[in-house]
Amino acid sequence: MSTQPLTHGTVPQRIVRIRELMNREGVHALLVPSADPHLSEYLPGYWQGRQWLSGFHGSVGTLIVTADFAGVWADSRYWEQATKELKGSGIELVKLQPGQPGPLEWLGEQTPEGGVVAVDGAVMAVASARTLGGKLEARGARLRTDIDLLNEAWHDRPALPSQPVYQHLPPQATVSRVEKLAALRESLKEKGADWHFIATLDDIAWLFNLRGADVSFNPVFVSFALITQQQATLFVALEKVDIELREVLELDGVTLRDYSEMAAALREVPVGDSLQVDPARVTAGLLNNLASGVKLIEGLNPTTLAKSRKSQADAEHIRQAMEQDGAALCEFFAWLEGALGRERITELTIDERLSAARERRPGYVSLSFNTIAAFNANGAMPHYHATQEEHAVIEGNGLLLIDSGGQYLGGTTDITRMVPIGTPTDEQKRDCTRVLKGVIALSRAHFPRGILSPLLDAIARAPIWAQGVDYGHGTGHGVGYFLNVHEGPQVIAYQAAAAPQTAMQPGMITSIEPGTYRPGRWGVRIENLAMNREAGTTEFGEFLAFETLTLCPIDTRCLIPSLLTVEERQWFNDYHAQVCERLSPLLGGAALEWLQVRTAAI
Amino acid sequence: MSTQPLTHGTVPQRIVRIRELMNREGVHALLVPSADPHLSEYLPGYWQGRQWLSGFHGSVGTLIVTADFAGVWADSRYWEQATKELKGSGIELVKLQPGQPGPLEWLGEQTPEGGVVAVDGAVMAVASARTLGGKLEARGARLRTDIDLLNEAWHDRPALPSQPVYQHLPPQATVSRVEKLAALRESLKEKGADWHFIATLDDIAWLFNLRGADVSFNPVFVSFALITQQQATLFVALEKVDIELREVLELDGVTLRDYSEMAAALREVPVGDSLQVDPARVTAGLLNNLASGVKLIEGLNPTTLAKSRKSQADAEHIRQAMEQDGAALCEFFAWLEGALGRERITELTIDERLSAARERRPGYVSLSFNTIAAFNANGAMPHYHATQEEHAVIEGNGLLLIDSGGQYLGGTTDITRMVPIGTPTDEQKRDCTRVLKGVIALSRAHFPRGILSPLLDAIARAPIWAQGVDYGHGTGHGVGYFLNVHEGPQVIAYQAAAAPQTAMQPGMITSIEPGTYRPGRWGVRIENLAMNREAGTTEFGEFLAFETLTLCPIDTRCLIPSLLTVEERQWFNDYHAQVCERLSPLLGGAALEWLQVRTAAI
Repeated sequence: MSTQPLTHGTVPQRIVRIRELMNREGVHALLVPSADPHLSEYLPGYWQGRQWLSGFHGSVGTLIVTADFAGVWADSRYWEQATKELKGSGIELVKLQPGQPGPLEWLGEQTPEGGVVAVDGAVMAVASARTLGGKLEARGARLRTDIDLLNEAWHDRPALPSQPVYQHLPPQATVSRVEKLAALRESLKEKGADWHFIATLDDIAWLFNLRGADVSFNPVFVSFALITQQQATLFVALEKVDIELREVLELDGVTLRDYSEMAAALREVPVGDSLQVDPARVTAGLLNNLASGVKLIEGLNPTTLAKSRKSQADAEHIRQAMEQDGAALCEFFAWLEGALGRERITELTIDERLSAARERRPGYVSLSFNTIAAFNANGAMPHYHATQEEHAVIEGNGLLLIDSGGQYLGGTTDITRMVPIGTPTDEQKRDCTRVLKGVIALSRAHFPRGILSPLLDAIARAPIWAQGVDYGHGTGHGVGYFLNVHEGPQVIAYQAAAAPQTAMQPGMITSIEPGTYRPGRWGVRIENLAMNREAGTTEFGEFLAFETLTLCPIDTRCLIPSLLTVEERQWFNDYHAQVCERLSPLLGGAALEWLQVRTAAI
Repeated sequence: MSTQPLTHGTVPQRIVRIRELMNREGVHALLVPSADPHLSEYLPGYWQGRQWLSGFHGSVGTLIVTADFAGVWADSRYWEQATKELKGSGIELVKLQPGQPGPLEWLGEQTPEGGVVAVDGAVMAVASARTLGGKLEARGARLRTDIDLLNEAWHDRPALPSQPVYQHLPPQATVSRVEKLAALRESLKEKGADWHFIATLDDIAWLFNLRGADVSFNPVFVSFALITQQQATLFVALEKVDIELREVLELDGVTLRDYSEMAAALREVPVGDSLQVDPARVTAGLLNNLASGVKLIEGLNPTTLAKSRKSQADAEHIRQAMEQDGAALCEFFAWLEGALGRERITELTIDERLSAARERRPGYVSLSFNTIAAFNANGAMPHYHATQEEHAVIEGNGLLLIDSGGQYLGGTTDITRMVPIGTPTDEQKRDCTRVLKGVIALSRAHFPRGILSPLLDAIARAPIWAQGVDYGHGTGHGVGYFLNVHEGPQVIAYQAAAAPQTAMQPGMITSIEPGTYRPGRWGVRIENLAMNREAGTTEFGEFLAFETLTLCPIDTRCLIPSLLTVEERQWFNDYHAQVCERLSPLLGGAALEWLQVRTAAI
């Protein structure tokens, strides 16, 4: 224990302090989820309390502390990291597995009768609080969401983020905030809602055509919104909005109030009025401020569906962003192919060079997520990220997996490609070919408008399952428009519940990214983004088809073309012809040459 | 009104009488579902109260009567029939459509505060009664399940069925009832259930290796069962079980009690004991007999899953039954091809001749459902059945759809084939070819053991959707072993909820039957039964694949072979080679010749 570094050594002390506070408040168990008041994927430091208290720095995990137990629940992506980071802390790693009880189930089973479980209500979704509260009630125990013990113990808690808010402007912003607000109000009227409370940052950024940089990769800013037929109030730290922007917003009927006033504003909603919220996307702590006579209308935020459906004008900007992104990738790949074997290249070099290529492209703003450059065995970890301390050198033979993306003013990209290093084995090529078959099968699919997106997953998996192979992650996630690289409501994943809100609609953008992971050996993933386009109305209804948006060669040296069917080869060659045609005008020299070679028909 | 036949004319009188009774009891609305105390698909006459009271004779429909309204909710299959049969009765047809409110929702919206809705609890599932009760409670109204107004009005109610019960014997019964009871008791022990109450007739027939003939097509008998670790009690009209069978059952530890004693037996379950039931498969009326201190353990009946998983020995008998069934079909088809254009053939002739061909086969017991022989426009109605009054003559050009099946001691069959009449059009052939592509796509699929079966539907539909075509029914239903032609828990239908119990397991038999229906023109469906077989365990888990069980040529004259891919053609030719090889030994003369011609490779 004495050899642990100081920052790690303090974890047991923090746990001791938390247990003192729990004891004082009569709390039997403290639950610390990975969450913020906006239920975001990426958390500002201010809300990384689970990391602080447990010493486990993975992005997703749940800590539970009782008088004689402390444990972090984490899924398989984080087991290696959590094992390392929790060593000597006295905190157990509880391996979260599909079908196994999670932390809420554990509390539901372990809390004694009369026991009290505390969670900071400010960071727990209403829906989760209801689930947990119900489990506890069934045991004669109860849930408290009104105390934040962590805050009292956490003296060096980071400040809230304070990056400036800015406008997403035309031509890339194709619908004005005034029009978006009008449409939202129509939808509230239909549902009979007087008020609408939004806590999700991408919904707010989309609705107001505003962007920020409060968290990595997602161009959002920490805020809430409260909408009525007359008013639209944005709750944001006022110093983040300059005077000019404030005037613009006021002219558009948007009032600003300080971020800290959200709870007070909810308390002001008159009894008898109705308020629409998504119980999975607002926290119990905030909603508890409503008077009990306010009627809740629960459902998906209307902005979530509206945001997912990109307009024709958006689509034009996205196609241009994809061309820029594809061109950046070609420049990078051309460099990589020339440099391999001549200079020392590591997974970190890949990240740097690829980011630099994107930065040179017009409209580029930032990465859309941490680049994954993973060589051989590292590729078998779907969420691997190379660090200064641990990263592979690209040499010898095998497969290099590169999953990366950029934020552009006119769109968000996310692409995975496989690079052959030296001579890949036949088994590696078979894996790549099979995954490509999955990409092609789904990319070619037509489907009825309104089909629940999880039901489409089997189309991508069928050619992969055919050879006794499967992968643990979903096949596709929704993607924003210069917004979050992961957005709903659609999701192509057989593991996801086929809820009505996952229905496929025109304009949605979804990734198509099947894979194959062989632990300790290599990983394969090929990913394009595709947009739902109308594919005609017949006597059987309206149909949709995917337009593949991503433009970048899929390296044929990783493939065994004879394993492709005539129809698959046709799709592949058509795709490459289009990639070559659309990227050529943006490239010259070695990159253009590389593009032409790598898109030759097979 | 005076021109209505007497039986029809009495419907308004019956409604008047029911309203008097409702008035006497203070009932605002009476609900009459299509159901019996076993929640069966086929109802004995005794429980066809909705038919009697409304005059609508379709098998599925729900009647609601209030003081000033009477309506039958029926889905699109029955609209034509219901319109005809309800004419002049004063009862409205309410068209049931996906996404539209059904009769329970209607009651939930229309019942006034303080109102009382009555339903015979003996024929309403606990789950449905809970749903409806909850809706009514939310309005300040309530549900009564303790009165049967219909019975009081229905003077000429048919008697309960009284066909003898008989044993399903070895070799076809491959697991003894003693072994099945032991396995069931193990499962109850695991769940901590002292008692298990079964109301579903196929679960009971399967568990006790008994069969009956109380309803058409399903070889079951009206009964209940109550199981503990010590006792197994079968509740059945005692006169249906002869003395020899009674002794056999007693030796196997099965006690008989009269069918009428079920309610009393449930009242005898001691307070503090636990009882396992499936709330979707037992009625509120019966379960209300339990003392309130009996603890309910709710879940799928263990027999439902066990019954769905046919053993290797079962599979051998099923393969033989499929050979016999296929041979019968070949004899019929050979006759049909020779007779067409020479004698007058109607849809009814088809039914007679095909049934006769099956009857000649060893092990044959009965049809497994009403034969569907549907020519051209009639084929566009998926549940069409020709009658003496209305049926088509098979002449001219087009497509004849034949969907039929048999009960054999060693299995249950269900097959649909298309027959070309004269010269089918190119459009008709394209429809057939596309549907065949769907059959082939799913038949070739491998998939992870445990995948939720509704998620596989898209594999069959993808080649059909690809051309803007879809069909409203599911792609596949489970099939019993000399039992119901429709059984759960699996179902390949994207319209079905992907519940955990629908997981695919080895030994399950499911139909694969995509279709295309062009109202007023023609319908296409091609159907095989397929069994889940183990397809190997890899580092990615256990995989299953389908073994196609059904053996009968798919007429190539309905197809455009050039539209098939190389891989599809390969599957098709392999299938026909197997059909020819396995059926040839059972056939001679014209039927053998027909088989050889119709299975020639394309």
